[in-house]
Amino acid sequence: MLAQWIIEKKRDGHELTAAEIHEFIAGYTGGSIPDYQMSALAMAIFFRGMTPDETAALTEAMMRSGDIVDTSSIAAPKIDKHSTGGIGDKVSLLLAPLVACCGIAVPMTAGRGLGITGGTLDKLESIPGYRTHLTTREFLAVVAGCGCSIIGQTDRLAPADKKLYALRDVTGTVPSIPLITASIMSKKLAEGVDGLVLDVKCGRGAFMKTPEAARDLAGSLVRVGRQMGKKMAALITSMDQPLGRSAGNALEIIETGEALRGGGTADLMDVTLTLGAHMLRLAEYADSHAAARAQLAAHLRSGAAWEKWLEMVRQQGGDSAALEDTTRLPQARLQEPLPAPQTGFIVEADAEAIGKACLLLGAGRARTTDVVDHAVGVAGMAKIGERVERGQPLAVLHANDPMRLAEARKMMQAAFRQEDNPVAKPVLILEAVE
Amino acid sequence: MLAQWIIEKKRDGHELTAAEIHEFIAGYTGGSIPDYQMSALAMAIFFRGMTPDETAALTEAMMRSGDIVDTSSIAAPKIDKHSTGGIGDKVSLLLAPLVACCGIAVPMTAGRGLGITGGTLDKLESIPGYRTHLTTREFLAVVAGCGCSIIGQTDRLAPADKKLYALRDVTGTVPSIPLITASIMSKKLAEGVDGLVLDVKCGRGAFMKTPEAARDLAGSLVRVGRQMGKKMAALITSMDQPLGRSAGNALEIIETGEALRGGGTADLMDVTLTLGAHMLRLAEYADSHAAARAQLAAHLRSGAAWEKWLEMVRQQGGDSAALEDTTRLPQARLQEPLPAPQTGFIVEADAEAIGKACLLLGAGRARTTDVVDHAVGVAGMAKIGERVERGQPLAVLHANDPMRLAEARKMMQAAFRQEDNPVAKPVLILEAVE
Repeated sequence: MLAQWIIEKKRDGHELTAAEIHEFIAGYTGGSIPDYQMSALAMAIFFRGMTPDETAALTEAMMRSGDIVDTSSIAAPKIDKHSTGGIGDKVSLLLAPLVACCGIAVPMTAGRGLGITGGTLDKLESIPGYRTHLTTREFLAVVAGCGCSIIGQTDRLAPADKKLYALRDVTGTVPSIPLITASIMSKKLAEGVDGLVLDVKCGRGAFMKTPEAARDLAGSLVRVGRQMGKKMAALITSMDQPLGRSAGNALEIIETGEALRGGGTADLMDVTLTLGAHMLRLAEYADSHAAARAQLAAHLRSGAAWEKWLEMVRQQGGDSAALEDTTRLPQARLQEPLPAPQTGFIVEADAEAIGKACLLLGAGRARTTDVVDHAVGVAGMAKIGERVERGQPLAVLHANDPMRLAEARKMMQAAFRQEDNPVAKPVLILEAVE
Repeated sequence: MLAQWIIEKKRDGHELTAAEIHEFIAGYTGGSIPDYQMSALAMAIFFRGMTPDETAALTEAMMRSGDIVDTSSIAAPKIDKHSTGGIGDKVSLLLAPLVACCGIAVPMTAGRGLGITGGTLDKLESIPGYRTHLTTREFLAVVAGCGCSIIGQTDRLAPADKKLYALRDVTGTVPSIPLITASIMSKKLAEGVDGLVLDVKCGRGAFMKTPEAARDLAGSLVRVGRQMGKKMAALITSMDQPLGRSAGNALEIIETGEALRGGGTADLMDVTLTLGAHMLRLAEYADSHAAARAQLAAHLRSGAAWEKWLEMVRQQGGDSAALEDTTRLPQARLQEPLPAPQTGFIVEADAEAIGKACLLLGAGRARTTDVVDHAVGVAGMAKIGERVERGQPLAVLHANDPMRLAEARKMMQAAFRQEDNPVAKPVLILEAVE
């Protein structure tokens, strides 16, 4: 079948067969179908959407474009977590060791930051020596050794996605639920997991701005995963304010350590424990959500989760001493508190504006080719509902460039809003798709 | 402005500015905007359409991507005709000399056939020696010398269209009225004409299947032409049965000669004279449609049109003796009548099926790279409304390959349908857009 006939069929609103989708993706990955046909199909998919069967076929075709990790040597249930990305979202760093403490294997591939969204891989790379690129054999050895490993996506995992994602980025075809679904799920399922828990972010600092859009995406991800025989659960969580108190790579590594030793903010720990509980439930390692949370909380209290974190970092080649003495992590030259202009309760801490300030400071990437500054970002952020006295810090800016600091300061000032009267804490976990 | 922002703007249903369209087309023509961004934009245009202003800006940007012929040395009004393409449509070959007899200059660029649609250029190339590629200077000299010239599109005329058309062909973005409009009009307006008469074909053998679709296209073409200061008129004509009695390259050259000497079928002459009358009216060379038709008919009767045809062919390097002694034109080895299975009136002569039979015989191109066989096709076709006795020919097939002949025979048999009772002749000229 000619590639353009497949494009025309989708353009005209007809359902593609699995064979047509596999043929197209195989041709695209192999180079016989050029970028200009793929981008035309992607735009037709943007407008026409895809049925669940088509989305599943696209996911499978993209997954099969590369290697699928053979995790059969690991006896424990293999459960991963994926977030659609937010500001200050260090949940993966907490979850992997915490869930591994319960005897579940967590073979996790993570991504880099783009735009205002942070990347787990960038955060890990602020730890001296941490290797984000392991061979499959090394990856499996770390998972077997300590129960969890977090690495970057290799070129051999879902190469069709790598190629298609770069193309979508420059052809206006990113915001399409079937394409997002196939992109996420093809990579995650190529890891060889038994189950996957999703954190679909929703709000100002998220890709999905409304609960409806987030629900559509969560539904699509869960449906495709189940159709491919995986245990699935999803949460829709708010990304109106950043998670925790810091955003920035080394700064989030520091906060991760604090949280694993019992010092995490309520919002960060609530998302972490709820996602973790779903992971335990998928693995059938707990009879109830409450029992699952209790197990996880016990591993935090006992210090086991913190020890697991040190162990994983060591096994990945990282300097775990830098997690205990954080002055060994990259440090920004300029550290400047942002004083509150008045006394009052925080009613707004705009995740999008804070993300843009961090991007400006150099913590993220405007383009995929940008180099990240691991030291910079913001820490000590006040949370919505907290009372801050006039002159006390709303946050502390960490910068390496005075000009950028000045600009980021303005953005951070505009990101926070205080009022005289107390406000209710915002709802964080909006929905669970089970 | 980044190319993807322009794509996203169109994708989201916003109107592009003329500057954005010019920037995109200039970038595409120059190579800084790659095919994969152009095809994504084309697909977004397919779904979102374009306003008249956007369509005019696109047409102008594509026209300005190359040279614009300077016809100021020719004093006479310069009027061209364009057809959206059909089966057996040799009207351009008749019109150019006929209208030139009235003192109007006809600088015509024509295209090649693709799919079931025949191409004026292919027909002309069946005449030994006829040069379809002239320099601009030669082209203008032929127009100045005999009043008309028909050549192929040069690489320097609207190169953006050449590049975009090839891309649309393989990316499912052909059937879009703004894109078709810009493609046709950018080439035609680059010829430096004062006015243009359009024959928008409608029906089975046409690109536009319904009168509504044909009306939309005609309206868009006329609007854009007028917006760019040209005199415009359009007819919507039926392409349910082929025009005239033949389809195929040399066969249509033979029929053209017969028609110019008074032997044309009613449908062919009606379309020719109506389009020609509109050309005269645009040039303000006739006070009424009836007066215009009378002028044209007189040039047919006097033999002047036929003489002009011979002269134009000679001036383009063609062997005009082959128009008088048509055995000097390419001849098919196999010529086989198709006998009527019964006695009755022709009620159907399916242009699409006949076009496919001709394509199969080798008269057309399935792909742009195919080589045309100038000798093959069908001639002597019975017209709807005519009575044919059992065993008398419905048509004569001209073939060079017995296998292809056998297959084409079957298709031709299915294309004709007879009934016992006489039927009214179908309406040919459906509408005029003036």
